[in-house]
Amino acid sequence: MLKKMLLVSTILLAWTTGPARAAGPSDAVYPYLGIDWGGEVFVGAALPFGMVKVGPDMETFDGFHIGSGYAGTGRVLGFSHLHLSGASGKYGNILVAPVTGEVIPADIKSVRVDEVAKVGYYAATLTRYQTRVELTATPRVGLHRYTFLTGGDAHITVNLAAILNKGPGSESQKFLGAELKVISPTAIEGVGRYTGGWNEGGEYQVYFHMEVDHVPARVRTWAGGPPSPDATATVDGDQPIGASFDFNAQPGEVVQVKVGLSFVSAAQAHRTVEKEAPGWDFDAIRAQATAAWDRALSPIAVTGGSDDQRRQLYTALYHTMLMPSDRTGENPSWTSTEPYYDDYYTLWDTFRTSGPLLTLIAPERQRDLVRSLVDIYRHEGYLPDGRSGNDTGRTQGGSNAEVVIADAYVKGLTGIDYKTAYAGMRKDAEVPPQDPRKWGRGGLMEYNAKGYLSLANERSGSRTVEYAYDDFAIATLACGLGRREEAKLYAQRSGNWSNLWDPALVKEGVKGFLRPRNPDGSWAEPNTLKRGTWPDFFYEGDEWTYSLYAPHDVARLVALSGGKAGFLRRLDTLFLKRHFDMSNEPGFLLPLYYNWIGRPDRTADMTVYALEREFLGTHGGIPGNDDSGAMSSWLIFQMLGFFPVAGQDVYLISTPSFPEADLDLGEGKHFRVIAHNLDAERFNRYVQSATLNGQPLETNWFRHGQIKDGGVLELVMGPEPTRWGTGTPPPSLSDTTADRPMLCVPASQP
Amino acid sequence: MLKKMLLVSTILLAWTTGPARAAGPSDAVYPYLGIDWGGEVFVGAALPFGMVKVGPDMETFDGFHIGSGYAGTGRVLGFSHLHLSGASGKYGNILVAPVTGEVIPADIKSVRVDEVAKVGYYAATLTRYQTRVELTATPRVGLHRYTFLTGGDAHITVNLAAILNKGPGSESQKFLGAELKVISPTAIEGVGRYTGGWNEGGEYQVYFHMEVDHVPARVRTWAGGPPSPDATATVDGDQPIGASFDFNAQPGEVVQVKVGLSFVSAAQAHRTVEKEAPGWDFDAIRAQATAAWDRALSPIAVTGGSDDQRRQLYTALYHTMLMPSDRTGENPSWTSTEPYYDDYYTLWDTFRTSGPLLTLIAPERQRDLVRSLVDIYRHEGYLPDGRSGNDTGRTQGGSNAEVVIADAYVKGLTGIDYKTAYAGMRKDAEVPPQDPRKWGRGGLMEYNAKGYLSLANERSGSRTVEYAYDDFAIATLACGLGRREEAKLYAQRSGNWSNLWDPALVKEGVKGFLRPRNPDGSWAEPNTLKRGTWPDFFYEGDEWTYSLYAPHDVARLVALSGGKAGFLRRLDTLFLKRHFDMSNEPGFLLPLYYNWIGRPDRTADMTVYALEREFLGTHGGIPGNDDSGAMSSWLIFQMLGFFPVAGQDVYLISTPSFPEADLDLGEGKHFRVIAHNLDAERFNRYVQSATLNGQPLETNWFRHGQIKDGGVLELVMGPEPTRWGTGTPPPSLSDTTADRPMLCVPASQP
Repeated sequence: MLKKMLLVSTILLAWTTGPARAAGPSDAVYPYLGIDWGGEVFVGAALPFGMVKVGPDMETFDGFHIGSGYAGTGRVLGFSHLHLSGASGKYGNILVAPVTGEVIPADIKSVRVDEVAKVGYYAATLTRYQTRVELTATPRVGLHRYTFLTGGDAHITVNLAAILNKGPGSESQKFLGAELKVISPTAIEGVGRYTGGWNEGGEYQVYFHMEVDHVPARVRTWAGGPPSPDATATVDGDQPIGASFDFNAQPGEVVQVKVGLSFVSAAQAHRTVEKEAPGWDFDAIRAQATAAWDRALSPIAVTGGSDDQRRQLYTALYHTMLMPSDRTGENPSWTSTEPYYDDYYTLWDTFRTSGPLLTLIAPERQRDLVRSLVDIYRHEGYLPDGRSGNDTGRTQGGSNAEVVIADAYVKGLTGIDYKTAYAGMRKDAEVPPQDPRKWGRGGLMEYNAKGYLSLANERSGSRTVEYAYDDFAIATLACGLGRREEAKLYAQRSGNWSNLWDPALVKEGVKGFLRPRNPDGSWAEPNTLKRGTWPDFFYEGDEWTYSLYAPHDVARLVALSGGKAGFLRRLDTLFLKRHFDMSNEPGFLLPLYYNWIGRPDRTADMTVYALEREFLGTHGGIPGNDDSGAMSSWLIFQMLGFFPVAGQDVYLISTPSFPEADLDLGEGKHFRVIAHNLDAERFNRYVQSATLNGQPLETNWFRHGQIKDGGVLELVMGPEPTRWGTGTPPPSLSDTTADRPMLCVPASQP
Repeated sequence: MLKKMLLVSTILLAWTTGPARAAGPSDAVYPYLGIDWGGEVFVGAALPFGMVKVGPDMETFDGFHIGSGYAGTGRVLGFSHLHLSGASGKYGNILVAPVTGEVIPADIKSVRVDEVAKVGYYAATLTRYQTRVELTATPRVGLHRYTFLTGGDAHITVNLAAILNKGPGSESQKFLGAELKVISPTAIEGVGRYTGGWNEGGEYQVYFHMEVDHVPARVRTWAGGPPSPDATATVDGDQPIGASFDFNAQPGEVVQVKVGLSFVSAAQAHRTVEKEAPGWDFDAIRAQATAAWDRALSPIAVTGGSDDQRRQLYTALYHTMLMPSDRTGENPSWTSTEPYYDDYYTLWDTFRTSGPLLTLIAPERQRDLVRSLVDIYRHEGYLPDGRSGNDTGRTQGGSNAEVVIADAYVKGLTGIDYKTAYAGMRKDAEVPPQDPRKWGRGGLMEYNAKGYLSLANERSGSRTVEYAYDDFAIATLACGLGRREEAKLYAQRSGNWSNLWDPALVKEGVKGFLRPRNPDGSWAEPNTLKRGTWPDFFYEGDEWTYSLYAPHDVARLVALSGGKAGFLRRLDTLFLKRHFDMSNEPGFLLPLYYNWIGRPDRTADMTVYALEREFLGTHGGIPGNDDSGAMSSWLIFQMLGFFPVAGQDVYLISTPSFPEADLDLGEGKHFRVIAHNLDAERFNRYVQSATLNGQPLETNWFRHGQIKDGGVLELVMGPEPTRWGTGTPPPSLSDTTADRPMLCVPASQP
């Protein structure tokens, strides 16, 4: 007994420390951050933007786990190869699990202990099977190392029928069928067919090639029945199907497994395994994964701050880089030399923060993401708003690919076919889609005819204001492409948000809110109760949030709210009476709106409060779904002390969390944010004075053009507000100050 | 210049380290925990349950600070001597402030930097006055040490007109007038008269004696005008009044100040200064204060856990012991040999957790608090629900002194005149009060006649269910005192909560909720929108919370909810759909309700989630008002791993945060909670097996009688639920299992 314990201890030590390497930013990543409280982050092994995300799926019980795969509690069902991060209801395919004793496909599950979660690595011991599990990955291959601690009758199983969120509901997944084939004593291949999930997408097929590192006693398969010696298995509906590599294992015997994935063919999956993961050096693959993460995370370097702040920053960056998934060369629908990404889940979430962040620190990645969007339009006829499992859907609020593209354009991202992109944007704005939950803009004819959506169309409030901002994005690109008439048209339409503004609607002393209209144009009853469901007036937000959704014309919002004093009162009421909802994206900009009325001190207060209470370094550290890193990248910008107005070339200044942050913009260019006089208690949250690239900066905002070649933003912080930042506000469409019109003056365009 | 900087550095060093002492639990206290997000905790110097709480009051601006005194931002107005903790809207009296240069009473304020906050000590540098401020305290004297860094024209001012939350609103304070007199070259005395505040209390008078440690150049006073040499000053309304000790200070000159307070007379304030703070040894007084806190915090000792967990635990205990204020001998209204406490603010908040906590670790304190309540009844005719500034008010939900007294009784607290207490409880239940926002039970005649309150009375839903539980508390004491007929009567009334239960009301698939009735008995429209305001159906809670408020008969709630499965669904919906509101007290027990249906695993899940996300070690670390430590003591019990059912002798088991906790029950008795196999990630949150005092414990609850003489609760934790705790549920009135009736069997009574 003592001997075995020593063995286990030695193994545990090796597991915990991993291969030796120099310290890197990935050391600060805490993969558990966000597993609770609906953060739904992925836990397992993946590369930055990797296609394969291999990790454990836990038993759901009584509706308590809602299907994102990982959970802190519940038994492990196995380790599947496709996951979302920060969202749920899709994937969980190709589930591999070790078993000891009899293989009963319907009863494979175990408690796990001694879990380790690091970037590119996951480990746990399954107590029921006395098996240590380790996972790592390449971009498209999952690597498993199983140590059968007590040996004996040991198996590596694979289950093709497993998926997350299986069920009858409209947002659940369905398993349609699969086939598999034993192709050698150590390898099997096959494909599973699935459909559905949150995006209500069509069928997607997952091909795989799986092999083990030494010859098992036998390989069995099953299809609708118990395991048998058949070398092939097929099911054409939701029936059990899988295979088992059976070993007579010595105590401590290690079995390694590689599973390559493809959306094109099993042969391609096989080639990918040979290319990305030849041989059986698990530790080397793990080291590669860690190194890839260290490189991916390295464009942000910070000085000072607490351990908890660094943990939050780098975990947020890690989460931002788990999605979308790079599937270039894996597109089953058309052939193209363009990059192909999947799991835009959804642009409605990510356009506000993730896109602008990648544009700064990973511009080539963002360029490829935009090119992939444009290529999808090119071949399918519509830009997606959400997309997963090779199928577009669902639209949330607007057609936000417009903002993504405009943001790339005004920030000078090159290598993008902006003309085709523009055609896709215009199609959203002009051609009513056949299925408006999938493509384009629902209710478009009414919107273009009346300038708003009435209650005849679902989500009429949030869609109206989002369409208006999307139109502004089109106008922006029209300007850049020299289409002045079209720019004028869309600039006009971009004011449509105010057509639902009822100046007489009063709540808590604040006057003027969006209000639904009946199809005849009359005011309907204000919808203040429901939120978050599809047929509502507002989508995932309320009247406090959506009434302020006009990021291109805050000056007009200020005017409609009764001027600066009225707007201050409105914002204060919103925040102090806790109408601000950090758990969803539509309000992302609101804490910064104070900058438009010369109150950057309040921006400082509200963002510091949000950082203090909404984002934590713990399991419940994300205030809601991480939404593919949208939440995480909100946090990153706030910690850096400036925040993008997505779709515009403007950044708003708030309060940095670190004395110094260095952003590597690529090509040797760096943008540094230096904050003098920060204190641990964050009392010195107010900017006293600022310089940008050595010149005094009096405004509480700056343009992308001022930092695109690198630079230094230097802030002197202090314990009380000063006159700094109280003058010239950030741009607004209706603020016609001569030296900063918003449209048709290509400031920093390419 | 160099020389002065060195001087300042040396002083700063001394300031930071403080007097040498051995490490104590107060080292873990972080006074900033809870200053933001409405925690409203006191920051400054005070003793445990001390009368004087001397600390800075910050300028309020634009409604952003809501009047609890301290704020992380905003300029310091001075240092006043009375504060609440975890609540706002009262006190802020006798404001002392240093000034350099001309004294303009209406313009005394400064930014502060280099702030230090420790138990019993506060320090900051006021930049405008180049003055280092240090504060410490005895129970009834505030000590100030001012270092005028640059010297020159220096002043110590006192302002009697200052109060927090001054204004015209019904919950604001008013300054009624004051007088002061220079009684020696180094001392002044006087009194200020004030009224109002959140409790809408009547006039309270604050007497003070103030002296400085060396003779100033002169003393000036003002009353409605500029400073003058007059030795006396009087105002009879809201006019400026104050005094200034004027010095020609050397650079680095130190002026010490003592301010004694009394609610009886200036002479008594003077005597208190001589008794509690003779001489001028600031450091010695500070050391006494620290030692007092170390003693007060020492009854809870823990092993293991993170630094953050220990910080949270001891700061919570510190906050629990800031209120009520021990004012024995300072009662201006009647003479009594009984203890006298003020600032029960309110019992509605604290009865659930603070009372039960003190009963365990500071039973003599809790005894004195209850005796004080009984003495207030004896002399005023009613037990208070809230009380501050020597005046009772306001009632919140019920008459919860009943539960406080019953809790003390069933836990065997001796030295309390339970007969008189019982008379006070019955008066609440039988005699309609003249002013129901101040005393007793509003709408009592309707409640006693119909068994519920209709919409004819405000807060009819929450009051009905609270009155019912208060009646249960009366029945409990009636049993103990042998009044079986009365016990029967009140036991019957304790079922009144169900008279508002509408079994047909369905929300989100959950059936059965409280619903308002019209005066004629018919159902009124369910009120689901409003919450927290006085005329509402519910007070500071909603239908999800109050429909479950029957802590004495959860079995009946289970039955009304359709049995165990229905109750599980109800609780899961409540928590997973985020209807649970941690920011107010009515839901305090809800995460533990799973214990009644044999699902302690869910209790573990929900309490771990709450600890992870609602309570933090940061400025915003308290989910709402700390409410005199009610929130903080909720946290303490949860971290210890068991939770009291206030008013009953029952504790429910959840998940400890520490491998070992030792509670000193006094008289050499200790209760230890040992949790084996806890892990840092809190995955091992489920109890696998338990022993209590060496015997197997199969239930997820135990009685006070089982631990009152000390003992050990030993829990083995693990990663998944087991059969443990799924059997015999905690007691319920309608669960008539023979061996554990709830009433008229004095189990652990005195």
